[in-house]
Amino acid sequence: MTLPDDLLISPKDEVTIRQRLTRVARGDLPADRRVRVGRLLDVHSRMWLRDQEIIIAGRRIAYVGPFGSWPGTAAETLDRSHLMAVPGFGEVHKHIESSHVSPEWEAALVLPHGNTWTCEASHEFSNVNGAKTLDFWLAARLAGSPQKIFPLPGSAVPPTAYEWGGGYFGRDEQAAFLSESLMVAGLDEVMDWPAVWSPENPSHDRLWGMIEATFAARGVVEGHAAGIRDLPNINAFAAAGLASDHEAWTAEEVLDKLRRGLFMELRPHSAREMIQGLLAAGLQDWSQFALTTDDRSCSDTMKMGATDYNVRLAIEAGLAPEVAIQMVTLNPARHMRLTPWVGSIAPGRFADLVLLDDLPTLSIAEVWADGEQVSEGARYLKPVPRIDWPDWATRTVNITRPMIAADFAIKAEPGRQTMQAALLRPFHWADDFLTAELPVADSEVQRDASRNITKFAIVDRFSGEGRTSAMFWLGTGPKTPDSALACSMGHDKHNIWAVGSSDEAMAIAVNALNDLQGGWALVREGQLVATVRYEIAGLMTCRPPEALDAEMQRLYAEGAKIEWMYEPTFSPRWFPGFPERLAFATLTCAPWRWVLVAPSPLAPEGFVNVATGQTHPVVW
Amino acid sequence: MTLPDDLLISPKDEVTIRQRLTRVARGDLPADRRVRVGRLLDVHSRMWLRDQEIIIAGRRIAYVGPFGSWPGTAAETLDRSHLMAVPGFGEVHKHIESSHVSPEWEAALVLPHGNTWTCEASHEFSNVNGAKTLDFWLAARLAGSPQKIFPLPGSAVPPTAYEWGGGYFGRDEQAAFLSESLMVAGLDEVMDWPAVWSPENPSHDRLWGMIEATFAARGVVEGHAAGIRDLPNINAFAAAGLASDHEAWTAEEVLDKLRRGLFMELRPHSAREMIQGLLAAGLQDWSQFALTTDDRSCSDTMKMGATDYNVRLAIEAGLAPEVAIQMVTLNPARHMRLTPWVGSIAPGRFADLVLLDDLPTLSIAEVWADGEQVSEGARYLKPVPRIDWPDWATRTVNITRPMIAADFAIKAEPGRQTMQAALLRPFHWADDFLTAELPVADSEVQRDASRNITKFAIVDRFSGEGRTSAMFWLGTGPKTPDSALACSMGHDKHNIWAVGSSDEAMAIAVNALNDLQGGWALVREGQLVATVRYEIAGLMTCRPPEALDAEMQRLYAEGAKIEWMYEPTFSPRWFPGFPERLAFATLTCAPWRWVLVAPSPLAPEGFVNVATGQTHPVVW
Repeated sequence: MTLPDDLLISPKDEVTIRQRLTRVARGDLPADRRVRVGRLLDVHSRMWLRDQEIIIAGRRIAYVGPFGSWPGTAAETLDRSHLMAVPGFGEVHKHIESSHVSPEWEAALVLPHGNTWTCEASHEFSNVNGAKTLDFWLAARLAGSPQKIFPLPGSAVPPTAYEWGGGYFGRDEQAAFLSESLMVAGLDEVMDWPAVWSPENPSHDRLWGMIEATFAARGVVEGHAAGIRDLPNINAFAAAGLASDHEAWTAEEVLDKLRRGLFMELRPHSAREMIQGLLAAGLQDWSQFALTTDDRSCSDTMKMGATDYNVRLAIEAGLAPEVAIQMVTLNPARHMRLTPWVGSIAPGRFADLVLLDDLPTLSIAEVWADGEQVSEGARYLKPVPRIDWPDWATRTVNITRPMIAADFAIKAEPGRQTMQAALLRPFHWADDFLTAELPVADSEVQRDASRNITKFAIVDRFSGEGRTSAMFWLGTGPKTPDSALACSMGHDKHNIWAVGSSDEAMAIAVNALNDLQGGWALVREGQLVATVRYEIAGLMTCRPPEALDAEMQRLYAEGAKIEWMYEPTFSPRWFPGFPERLAFATLTCAPWRWVLVAPSPLAPEGFVNVATGQTHPVVW
Repeated sequence: MTLPDDLLISPKDEVTIRQRLTRVARGDLPADRRVRVGRLLDVHSRMWLRDQEIIIAGRRIAYVGPFGSWPGTAAETLDRSHLMAVPGFGEVHKHIESSHVSPEWEAALVLPHGNTWTCEASHEFSNVNGAKTLDFWLAARLAGSPQKIFPLPGSAVPPTAYEWGGGYFGRDEQAAFLSESLMVAGLDEVMDWPAVWSPENPSHDRLWGMIEATFAARGVVEGHAAGIRDLPNINAFAAAGLASDHEAWTAEEVLDKLRRGLFMELRPHSAREMIQGLLAAGLQDWSQFALTTDDRSCSDTMKMGATDYNVRLAIEAGLAPEVAIQMVTLNPARHMRLTPWVGSIAPGRFADLVLLDDLPTLSIAEVWADGEQVSEGARYLKPVPRIDWPDWATRTVNITRPMIAADFAIKAEPGRQTMQAALLRPFHWADDFLTAELPVADSEVQRDASRNITKFAIVDRFSGEGRTSAMFWLGTGPKTPDSALACSMGHDKHNIWAVGSSDEAMAIAVNALNDLQGGWALVREGQLVATVRYEIAGLMTCRPPEALDAEMQRLYAEGAKIEWMYEPTFSPRWFPGFPERLAFATLTCAPWRWVLVAPSPLAPEGFVNVATGQTHPVVW
């Protein structure tokens, strides 16, 4: 009888696979591998067991017990009795797109860090090509990649009703995803909070349709409660059925959300403070907690680590290593209803092991996935499958004409010397926009570098027409003349954004991205000086992380030759210098209010308050 | 707009209900009730909060926070600031049939004990009328009963391939159940272990079909690992995808199963020893544990309590009350993937509260369910809905002829003075049956009361024909002449069983049950001296528990006038006197071997080894 390849989880294959495992566990059939380990962390009891053996059949665990207790025979026996085995780590919420490498390269990148499974928060790729989202996220696994990616279709497709483009997910789409594959665990991060609570919001029915479809398929509805810190809204968020949050910043906020039943996914940026605060508050139970990454570039992962970094941070903050490990194994698996497959070293699960040679520092000697060793120290041992990504993945920037300076011009009313202008700045979380009086020249409203006011634009990359919204922004972008930065990653709709000290420079940068089919483009004093290629969906590369990192380093080096405007806001994640995080400053979901989007039916000039639907001229 | 009645959970209704809750939580819409409590147990953090308010809209919680923090208005405010609120208790595995009262009366019985939700292990009713199982289990709720019953269709329908009757569940039936209602959480207790691991077993495909259908619908596959104590079989059990066990007896067995990933549901019979043993072993984490009842008669519940009894036992065994309470709230809700609805006092969940006036003794002052107070001390305050149960529930004993003594005769071979007889005894868990040489008289093999050998029979109650299997049993039944006990509850197929010191008495008892349409019948010295009526499926009554208990007490009193055989076996749950537990001695699933079933195609005489399929004559 032919065994299933056991790459994607399917009910039918589960039967065949588990029937075999059952017989292997009893010793009735031979196993592929017997691995002896010195200690093994049972995450269910949070206790260590000494001198254990793990019996592997195919990609799964058939048996775990004291060394020598299994009655069967294995094709090979491996001695790792000098190492400690803990379960493969899982990401409960990660945008692999933010690694900027395609899934087969993500696997090679994060597996040596112990990260054997990932719940992919899929709304980036989905906003570019929603119809292909499962094809895309399951392709690497189908090609044999040992990382298990569980895609959760994003609720933010489109992010708000004021955006449109490469994807639209509603009730029917979500029902189809959940019915198509058991790899789909639920609905990812419901983040357009006004659309959830307000019946008047134009995305209300779409979002609740996705929630309904997820409940109907017994999936998990993930939340995103950024900026929701008052008890009425936290309660409302939980009442809506949104089961988690990963946007808390303080221990107090964590407790307020945890106590309303939200599963808390702690991100590194403030994990230390949150964990210390929770320990100080006397928290008695960490079972409703996970550690998660959300967004991390491959350059950062190469420097910091992946999930292992998060665990080390938690240990340094004072958590017992065993508790911290539960937060990236059993806890997220249980929350995501994936315990039959991941989260523990137990029969029936994928044979994913992290073998440590030191616990307090979480020093990883080897990682095993699918029953085989995949890394030795930091080195990934497996071949990376070569995937010929089709056009639907690689041809995603669709602008059928050259952009010109005039596309970015902001026309003045005839006869005016100055005009009032609306201003945004990165991470503008205020209820209202800022204003400034700006000079008029050549019939156009002009930037004012002396006040850190420059121009920011969103260029639609889906329609072919390059429809453009432009307005003035404060405190960001190049001060150096005739310079611009543009990128095809602009969360969450991923149109092209450009910020520049001249309209010509902005046009050059955007045209470069159209040629590249996505990435970064930097123009300095009228010359294109650096590009980074994201040939997959304009968000990722399918080249090795090292190749991408080298391009990024060249971009940073050229960027360092530019003078960047900087006016710190209250955002704790906005830094001076090269404004890499502008890619997130285009977010439109809660807690944002006034944002700039590509021209859309509900916001023809692109300037819109996404909480109310109100629009406003960008100059008047 | 009309609000849903919010009785049965449906995806569509969830949307409407949660949209309203969301607005109530924010204070945008008024609430029905504001309940102030002195302390509130947040089971997520396992921490107590002081002076809290719970805001209720419809049957659900809209808001929880410090008293006075909610910005809205409520129709009424209730002060319970002298009481401590903990979440409504849940049963993760209970056969309500074993209460012997129908679900509307079960609610009245267990709600004052805090038990607001129950995962119904439905294979008793299902073995009587499988097609109607959801109709039956959801009827009381639809009639307004505040207890939430989540039916899990039983895997044991029929229990083994050697039985047949009122129900047959396979892949298609299970898929239909899971698709019909979100109240269905999964597949209940897979217990025919030989059928799981052995491809030759005639139930193999049926069981794996149910497992497949449950995986496909993201349901939970519950296990039943009775007598499975060796590591190879425990591992095999977990590898099969069976997610839990409730059949452990010792701390060592619990640890062996927990460490293979099984969610452990501890039953009271040995909970004290198990918990003490686990504490002594240094168990660090109780999140994979629940306390559960499995089977308890309403008479026992009236004496002992319901889930509250289990919690008190755990506290007495040394667990912190907060941990014990998690084991009947958050933990089972999480395991059963029911956290959006039950398991914590948090927004979106049903407003089910247990209000305590003393924690260490778990003294229950009031219980609230669906947002209303339903009990005061031990008194249930709500009307019990009157349900006109249709014939499919009340006409389930189908024997279309009078049974006669000859139906129970065991014919001897002509000319024999004695014959060898196979013997079973209650809870006969040995690999082989016993044997004895028995006298022949009147061409029939005879009992031998002097050696505690009597006759036991199973009478099919489904076909109309009253097909009967009879054999000799040891150590049970009446020693008093011409006496018999019969019952229509005979786990798990629920044919009629009868044990008697004469064939005539057995016939009288079975005929009485046919007249009653189920229950108990006791014949003493040729006279029918007591009956108990189970008019619902032959397993339950739809009368008040007190009425049933009165009948049971009369049965016990008459039973006490009989001399009962008794030879203790190694079963720890087999007691002298009235042999009430004979109803469980007819179980056929693991770890049983040789059993007596009604005549069936695979076991024409009814005597069969259910682990191997081997049959044997009852005399030879």
